[in-house]
Amino acid sequence: MNTGHLINNKRMKIKEPRQRSLILITIMLVFVFCGNAAAQEKKQIVRMVKLVIDSAQLEKYKVLLMEGIETAVRVEPGVLTLYAVSELNNPTHFTILEIYADANAYNSHLNTSHFLKYKTGTKGMVKPLELVETVPLVPGMKIK
Amino acid sequence: MNTGHLINNKRMKIKEPRQRSLILITIMLVFVFCGNAAAQEKKQIVRMVKLVIDSAQLEKYKVLLMEGIETAVRVEPGVLTLYAVSELNNPTHFTILEIYADANAYNSHLNTSHFLKYKTGTKGMVKPLELVETVPLVPGMKIK
Repeated sequence: MNTGHLINNKRMKIKEPRQRSLILITIMLVFVFCGNAAAQEKKQIVRMVKLVIDSAQLEKYKVLLMEGIETAVRVEPGVLTLYAVSELNNPTHFTILEIYADANAYNSHLNTSHFLKYKTGTKGMVKPLELVETVPLVPGMKIK
Repeated sequence: MNTGHLINNKRMKIKEPRQRSLILITIMLVFVFCGNAAAQEKKQIVRMVKLVIDSAQLEKYKVLLMEGIETAVRVEPGVLTLYAVSELNNPTHFTILEIYADANAYNSHLNTSHFLKYKTGTKGMVKPLELVETVPLVPGMKIK
């Protein structure tokens, strides 16, 4: 008979309620965390903005867009990304994938000085503009 | 006269070459790192894939696309993102922003079992498919 084993069992029994509590708390925290993350992702505003730029003002537009994007992503926690691409075969055709944490983040972005600077600075450079509201397939997707 | 000051100056002089070397090495490392990062970003393949899905098979398609995307991003280091959205007002219209580290990453992705499973599994579900090669405005852009 191994008394050490009995003591260990006794100890185990004393620890069990604590361990159970710890496991339960961990499970609850995981659920709360995952629930929060999922709820946060559901509030996201994800859209594609499609723009065609006046070719005579393309380089000037790119400078203003780049400045506006880099500032917004750096200083606004709720601007999750502004991923802008131009088409290789149509360099005046842009698409911006915009992800905002929620409606508040989007609305406050519209009132920032850097957005207003971009908006007034590019007046007359943007020909048609199309906003496409979208639903992300994998809302938590990142860029590595 | 403060002798401590002199000693400090003496010590400073002894340390100076080391400090200079350290500063130089740091500057060189920053340049090498930034240069590498910029070179890496230049090799990226960034494209938009636009698809229209047969409405009768939409839910089945979404399951297969999600599985293919999540596996690729998880197991392939060179698949930097596959950010898929469907349009809120046209749920059968999808756009996928695909970012690959380089041409090798893209080519090896095409030969993975998960991509082939997606490709054969969704045969007949995808109506038109358009590949738009793009140039990112800010190549290092992430999603927070």
